[in-house]
Formats: sequence, C-alpha cells, structure tokens
Amino acid sequence: MYQKWLSERSRSFDASGIRKVFDLAAKLDHPINLSIGQPDFDAPEEAKEAAINAILSRKNGYTPTQGAAELRQKVQQRVDQDYGSGVREAVITSGTSGALMLTLMAMVNPGDEIILFDPYFVMYEALVKMLGGIPIFIETYPDFQLDVNKVRDAITPKTKLILFNSPANPTGTVATEEICRDLALLAKEKNIALISDEIYRFFCYDGEFTSPAKYNSDVIVLDGFSKCYGIPGWRIGFAHGPSAIMQQILKFQQYSFVCAPSALQYGSVAAMDTSMDTQFQAYRRKRNLIYEGLKDYYEIAKPGGAFYAFPKVPTGDATEFITRAIQEHQLLAIPGNVFSSRNTHFRLSFAATDETIEKGVEILQKMAKNC
Amino acid sequence: MYQKWLSERSRSFDASGIRKVFDLAAKLDHPINLSIGQPDFDAPEEAKEAAINAILSRKNGYTPTQGAAELRQKVQQRVDQDYGSGVREAVITSGTSGALMLTLMAMVNPGDEIILFDPYFVMYEALVKMLGGIPIFIETYPDFQLDVNKVRDAITPKTKLILFNSPANPTGTVATEEICRDLALLAKEKNIALISDEIYRFFCYDGEFTSPAKYNSDVIVLDGFSKCYGIPGWRIGFAHGPSAIMQQILKFQQYSFVCAPSALQYGSVAAMDTSMDTQFQAYRRKRNLIYEGLKDYYEIAKPGGAFYAFPKVPTGDATEFITRAIQEHQLLAIPGNVFSSRNTHFRLSFAATDETIEKGVEILQKMAKNC
Repeated sequence: MYQKWLSERSRSFDASGIRKVFDLAAKLDHPINLSIGQPDFDAPEEAKEAAINAILSRKNGYTPTQGAAELRQKVQQRVDQDYGSGVREAVITSGTSGALMLTLMAMVNPGDEIILFDPYFVMYEALVKMLGGIPIFIETYPDFQLDVNKVRDAITPKTKLILFNSPANPTGTVATEEICRDLALLAKEKNIALISDEIYRFFCYDGEFTSPAKYNSDVIVLDGFSKCYGIPGWRIGFAHGPSAIMQQILKFQQYSFVCAPSALQYGSVAAMDTSMDTQFQAYRRKRNLIYEGLKDYYEIAKPGGAFYAFPKVPTGDATEFITRAIQEHQLLAIPGNVFSSRNTHFRLSFAATDETIEKGVEILQKMAKNC
Repeated sequence: MYQKWLSERSRSFDASGIRKVFDLAAKLDHPINLSIGQPDFDAPEEAKEAAINAILSRKNGYTPTQGAAELRQKVQQRVDQDYGSGVREAVITSGTSGALMLTLMAMVNPGDEIILFDPYFVMYEALVKMLGGIPIFIETYPDFQLDVNKVRDAITPKTKLILFNSPANPTGTVATEEICRDLALLAKEKNIALISDEIYRFFCYDGEFTSPAKYNSDVIVLDGFSKCYGIPGWRIGFAHGPSAIMQQILKFQQYSFVCAPSALQYGSVAAMDTSMDTQFQAYRRKRNLIYEGLKDYYEIAKPGGAFYAFPKVPTGDATEFITRAIQEHQLLAIPGNVFSSRNTHFRLSFAATDETIEKGVEILQKMAKNC
C-alpha cells in the first residue's frame, strides 16, 4: 500500500552504499576502519567554548535564514578578502550538503543535463536524479585529473551546470590551477553554471588551493566548517556567489532547513580564528603513510588533498575485494562502485590514527601479495 | 542571465511574508513584538548541560542518519508507550520543518492534490508548490475547526495526502477528539496519507491533546523539540509512522541534511526528562491575557493551543491594518494573507512577556475603538 504513496522522486535513487559498509562494520569487534568520511581530530577548544557560551547565553532560538549576523559577516569578510568587495554574496547553510541540495533545487529542472566527474561524491548523482536531472559522467581514470576538452565535448544545449569538487572525494585529487582556470573560462564562455564544492579546501598537501571562482565571478562556491575544524556534526556550511542565486538558496532554506543550528554558528565564528596547521600537517603525514605504503603494491594516484586515496584492486571487482578485506581482516574501506560506474578501485580514508593506517597498509600489502 | 539558471521549482513559490515584517521590525527602536514564532522561554538547564557535555566529550562528528542511538531509542520508547510496541517507527530529523520537507519529497508527485486547511502554516503551501503538488484549500473560517465532510467532498482520485496541524499555526485552534478521529478514519477509508504536524502538541490549554494517529496507524506524525523545550535554534525534530515511509525519509535525509546536529541531539535526550509545566501554565495565562483583552473588541476565536491568536481586523484589509499598527504604534503582528487566501485576519503571537502582551492588547483596543 505504501508504494502507492511514494513519489517517483523517491524511486529515482538508492540509499548510499557507504551505509552498507557501516552496517557491516557495526558487527566487527576491532575494525581497522579506513572508511570514515570525517576527520579524527576534534573541534578547536575556542570553538567549543564559544558554542557553549552561546548555549548558556540563550542563543538557542532561530537565527535569521541567512545566518547569525556575526558568522555571516565574518564569512563575507573572508570572501571579500579573496575575491574583492561587493563581488560575491555569502550565506550560511546547514552544512555543505545542505547548501548543495538547496542550490540544486534552485537550479535543476527535470531533463537538465548535469556534468559530473567520475569518480564522484556519492551525493551528487543521487541529488541530481532526485530532482529529475540527467547526470552526464566524464571519466577521469586513471589519474583523476579532469580533461577540460572532454567537458567541452560533453556540453549540449541541455547542459545546465557542472558540479566540480577539488580536493575531491573519493580520489583525493587536487585539480591543477590550469584546469581550474580552463574549466571556469569554459563555463563562462558557454554561460553554464559551475558549482565548486570546496569542503576539502584546507586539505592541500603539495601546493596552494585554487578555486575556479578566481577566474569566473559567477561560479557558485559551496564550503563549510565540518572537515577543516573537526565539526561535521555541527552542520554549519556556507555558499557564496552571485546574489541572485544566493537569494534563491535562502528562499528554499526558509521552507526547509529554516536556519543552521544557532549556538553552533557562534562556535563556528570562533573556529574561524583558530589555526588548524598542526592537524593539516599531520594529515600530510598520514597521506604519505598510505601512499608510500601502497604505491609498490597497487596502482594508485598520489592524492594531493582531502583525506582519501583511491587505489585499484589487484584483480576481480572491488566489492569482492572489500568483502574479503572486511571478513578476513576486519579492514573497512568502500568499494569504488559507490562512487563510479566502474568497480575497479576502492576508497581508503586516512582520517584515522597513524596506528590504524599502518595496520591497514600492512593488511593491504599482504592482500596484494596473495593475489 | 541568472534567470536562465533557475529552476521552474524556484519560480513556484515566494519568500515568506513573515520575513517582510521582520525586516520592518529591524528598523524599530522599541517594537512591541507579537509576531514571533518561538517561545520566549529558554532551554531547560539539564538540556543545556547535556549539550555542553556532548560538545566537550567530542560528540561533534556525524551521528547515524536516523539519529544518535540515545535519542532515537528514547523517542521510540515514548512512541511505543503511546501507540504500542512495534506499531510505529521513529526517526530523528533536522527540525520538524526538515521532517516535513523530506516527507513531502518522498511522497508528492507533480500534479498530486494535497489537502490543506486555510488558514495554514506558511511553509505548507510553499513546499507543496515547490514539489509540483496542487494545494487544495479547505476553509475553516470563522472558528477554524475543520469540517470532515468538506474534506470528504474535496477528495478526488488525484488526492495524495492531507496535511493536518493541531494545535495550529496561525490560529491556535486545537482540533476536537471527534474531528481527529473522523479525519483519521476518512484517510483510512480512502487510503489517503494523513500527515499530522504535532509541533505544538504540548501547548494545549483546555484539554488533552489528541493525535489522529490514535485512530489510524498509518498516520505520519511530525514532531520536534523546538517549541516545547525552547530550542528552535537547535534544529532537532522527529517523525514516526509506517516503517516504509520512515525509511524513505532517511534515504532523502542521507543526501541532504545528513543528520541532525550531533551535540544538540544529546541535549534533547536530557530535555525529554524535564518538566515544562511551569512554562505551559504561563502560556495558558498569556493566552487568557490576549483573549480576554481582545474578545470585546475583535471577532476572535478562543485559541485552545499553540501560542497564536487570529483575530479579524475591524475594517479594511489586514495588510493595511498591520502596517498602521507598525508605523503608528510599533506593534508587530502578521497579516492574515501570509497564511490564507483571505486577508481579513492577523496573527498575534503570545510567545512574549506579559508586559509586551499587555502593551499590545492596549494598543489593539485603542485601534479597534478608532475604527
């Protein structure tokens, strides 16, 4: 009976395959967990203190839709520093995912073609399908650097937008400055919207982060505090870009998320003044641990950012390989088909203790030798 | 140019008229504010303490999609107490609005008819239109008690669901037990989904609260902690109902809200063990203050719950009346057309100090005399 009650929309996408791994994980006693999509470090003390003070000083009510003034203004200042004053408008959202959903709701019509890069963050495909859009995948194997000429070739009169993510989940790839520039200019030339998901912006290990927004003021940037400040559960994100689009995001936010969690917005204000350099340097070391440990055993692109590596399985398909890793070694990772039309690779997260990473590497070396 | 980028969806509804009043309010020095949709009391100390402890004990990461185990289980227990074990499944959402949006996304197809009661909560119409549904309004003037026979007459083969809200925003009306029962049984008979928004459940001044879910186990209940515990900014809500629907809500939540704010979920666990009786009794007194103060001056239905009254303006339209109230008396309230096809009434919130209510009543008495 309930089937009759469900929307077509609800049939257009599946629950995330990541959850299935988490369900398996729950049954293990001592998992070696390299599947987690959140940092293993905690929020800065200053941020916790500011959130606590907000709770104690009765900041438990709604904030304005666009965010508490203190946070919105501070984010706007940073954006103005980077892009010039009066160029881009910033709004506070409930997490970067919240910003992504609202942006796509404001923009995607049924039948619109949305360009995604394969492998892609799992949410992208689901959200595009949920809204009736048609995902157009551009493959980036084996090095996961996108080819802007392929993007040019994929553009049709139905192309509405390009969804770009650097540093990337699940590959850890950081797009080169040249690619960011060319992609931004192509979007401008074709009058196509470009959404840049910059949630891993601070996790760049081999150079500076570049945003395509540097080259095209119409780029819609989605960002947030979850990953860089160790507060994914706080659900505080933001977006910046053309005012006309930001105002639409707010209109949708008003009727859905209402506002980002109040006290945690005040905590985020304080987070913005802290330095996370020690943590980012530790993550560079973790990246090295995993890459150096695996490069002689697996085909693996060196991840320049985020906290993921995306090696190729030695033989067979990734689901079979990961099932074996879990069942025989209690090692958790995510098979590539969760993020891709291929099932030849797997995602390792190095958002874990060094000890866990070392154990994981050892197991993966053993598994490669036995293939 | 940006117009071309926007979805049809974004053109299907407008920003809330409530915001316009808030913008006007921001310009006033000493507003007498009877426009606020959140309680004037703060979170219970125990809830704040528990949220703070969660922040300090590193509960700043994601929780499971369905909610932190402690909160989900506690909510499930309460639901089981009320409805029997194994009958209804509970899931934690990002606010009641979040639950509403996800439920409608999971259920409403373009062209589906959705029965709403006029006056209605402003979000209902916008969300239905946003998803391509067709709102079918059933008028409830002048006493705001709905007529189940009118609902029966409004049902067509295209009717997907009924969106019900008691105690109601903006009228403060509490549906009688008989109406709840008849509506629930009608939905069952017709195999139509019934969504019951019970966010004001604890604010009942003249009798017990009744849920239509008591008479129909398929009723989808939306609820939350915002209003009853003074924590609207925490964004913690929940839904309960048939497992098949709850699982769909979770599927949509996974790709949008991800999870409700973590530390504040732990705060909500503690909130559930506190008594808010003193606050609710104070709100009964506030209800009396506003109703007794206005009943000889305005046509006004006695609000049995929530914290709203919805009197009729003496002459002219409500926008003109409220503009005058703001400009001549710094009194803020919301004109009825924000919630209704009519613009003959206005919403007063008594979620304010007694002093503010008394001042507001005095001004409204004066305004009525001068008409």
